[in-house]
Amino acid sequence: MHLVPVEKLERFIRSCLTASGIREPDARIVAGLMTEADLNGSDGHGVFRLPQYIQRIQCGGMNVSPNIRVLRETGATALVDGDNAMGHLVMRFATELAMDKAAANGVAWVGVRHSNHAGPAALYAKMPMRRDMVGLYVAVGSANHLPPWGGTEMLLSTNPIAVAIPAGEEPPIVLDMATTVAAYGKVKTAAQRGEPMPEGWMMDRLGKPLTDPKRAAEGFLLPIGGPKGYGLSLVFGLMAGTLNGAAFGRDVVDFNADSRTVTNTGQLIVAISIESFMAADAFKRNVDAVIRSMRASPTLPGVDAVRVPGERSHQIRLQRQRDGIPIHGGLYRTLSELAEALDAEMFS
Amino acid sequence: MHLVPVEKLERFIRSCLTASGIREPDARIVAGLMTEADLNGSDGHGVFRLPQYIQRIQCGGMNVSPNIRVLRETGATALVDGDNAMGHLVMRFATELAMDKAAANGVAWVGVRHSNHAGPAALYAKMPMRRDMVGLYVAVGSANHLPPWGGTEMLLSTNPIAVAIPAGEEPPIVLDMATTVAAYGKVKTAAQRGEPMPEGWMMDRLGKPLTDPKRAAEGFLLPIGGPKGYGLSLVFGLMAGTLNGAAFGRDVVDFNADSRTVTNTGQLIVAISIESFMAADAFKRNVDAVIRSMRASPTLPGVDAVRVPGERSHQIRLQRQRDGIPIHGGLYRTLSELAEALDAEMFS
Repeated sequence: MHLVPVEKLERFIRSCLTASGIREPDARIVAGLMTEADLNGSDGHGVFRLPQYIQRIQCGGMNVSPNIRVLRETGATALVDGDNAMGHLVMRFATELAMDKAAANGVAWVGVRHSNHAGPAALYAKMPMRRDMVGLYVAVGSANHLPPWGGTEMLLSTNPIAVAIPAGEEPPIVLDMATTVAAYGKVKTAAQRGEPMPEGWMMDRLGKPLTDPKRAAEGFLLPIGGPKGYGLSLVFGLMAGTLNGAAFGRDVVDFNADSRTVTNTGQLIVAISIESFMAADAFKRNVDAVIRSMRASPTLPGVDAVRVPGERSHQIRLQRQRDGIPIHGGLYRTLSELAEALDAEMFS
Repeated sequence: MHLVPVEKLERFIRSCLTASGIREPDARIVAGLMTEADLNGSDGHGVFRLPQYIQRIQCGGMNVSPNIRVLRETGATALVDGDNAMGHLVMRFATELAMDKAAANGVAWVGVRHSNHAGPAALYAKMPMRRDMVGLYVAVGSANHLPPWGGTEMLLSTNPIAVAIPAGEEPPIVLDMATTVAAYGKVKTAAQRGEPMPEGWMMDRLGKPLTDPKRAAEGFLLPIGGPKGYGLSLVFGLMAGTLNGAAFGRDVVDFNADSRTVTNTGQLIVAISIESFMAADAFKRNVDAVIRSMRASPTLPGVDAVRVPGERSHQIRLQRQRDGIPIHGGLYRTLSELAEALDAEMFS
């Protein structure tokens, strides 16, 4: 296990990206967001994904000189064409636009097409908070791992949702969840670490539990609440994919297996200006009160404390800012090889 | 079991409401929506709730002469004060407003405070479809039945979400779900029918399964996906309740136990104009294709067919329009007594 200072990790990512042809200002944005993912404890969605991104760039599956632009626009909506850029760039563009529109019209809904995997959902949901807005992000996952309820054909992805709600003195509430019991990133992390998965994450095609992450290709993820999680994944996919003219269902490219084909990933961000409903300070005080009432409430036998979404991530962030970001042995070796191949700066 | 024609049920509800002091045009709206709920198979949220609504009116807990009005407004948002009207009236007002604003600005987000229980979530999510819009509805449930994850104090409700997405030749996709494994309405229906609940719906305060619906007061509902359902219930409650200045958490009045105290129920409706993103016809054709791909996909052993959300409700609707709405013996007796007490027209 290596503990890498935040700035070193960010510089390493930037160096790998520019060595792969990404423009310097773009590399700076992506490296910042990827490091942010690791800082927040999203271990399956930060630097862990770098080798895959680089491979896709090298295979010509992602555009290193994109022209991200607005295709359609109303007072409170926009449809953005990501021009097959790295998803982080597309979603940052879309979220900035959503915040500007929400500042003018109270709320904004911006959808994107021709995007790519953009890291953890929370990254974008959290951005509007700095302008006293609630953020809501939905994405079509970058590979289908979920069949419709009762089915065996993987027509759906983990299609995640993230919602970020600012508080006053307390850390914000940040929910970031897949519509499956486990995100596929967690399966990949377990495989890389050589750890088994708990029962309930995956099922094989006969309906039996699957716990060996190396056998992941033989089965599929399970939705939360059975038909309910399936329903959420479906409507999120229609709103983030189909409505934006992005891939959904059979059209989704498995970006784990195929680094060449354009994914046409769809995502959406909603920014809601708190001041449209009440004074932001009053709202944040009320959120503080809700958080404190949850935290102070009695627990079930054997449970140490009630937590609110985002609390654990916030604690990890404080710790990693201080101590650095832990990179386990397997990933460290992979990244070393990548640095060598790209002639990029390693963080050791 | 009685099969009651749709028009007769609607007239009965209207008659009971006007006999209780609700103004004739308002009674017409509420009766239409409540009958719609039964027609769609939402048995726990239609006429089943009438005695409770009437009791609340008689106890002075609901305003029969409300002045529903806009408190704050931007181009794409509004905050509506329901003036403690029946929730159906408040949400119909809010949804009409949201559709008008979405027609002008692409999307609209309308929140309400001082509302009340408004029946099934799908009623309001479905309304925008007739103007080629996607509808999204979230509510703070009208009684707390859910503790935060790991806790035992019921600070949260089933806080439901509904999303309605229009299709072309296929019936629309209509997801209407509680963030708990079961809605509390289902527990009430089971109790009224004298049927046990499946394991997984509820848990007692020691963490043991609770299956007798008559013992419901001794335990609490379970969230979908454990901490994920808790997280959804929390953020939905903050957006539909706290952001609107409506009750959430400890402030929520249990409308099953208390018919006098003003509930200050919060709800929100989002209308998204499809034409802001793509031609509505093209979108609907694409939704048809998604629905058909789901339905044609292979099933797990023992499963007869893959369904999409709203499909079963759509089939029930066709059947009930033809055959009438089934009212079981216990409910029939309750409604007969209500009609007699109000000197209202019975549907027999």
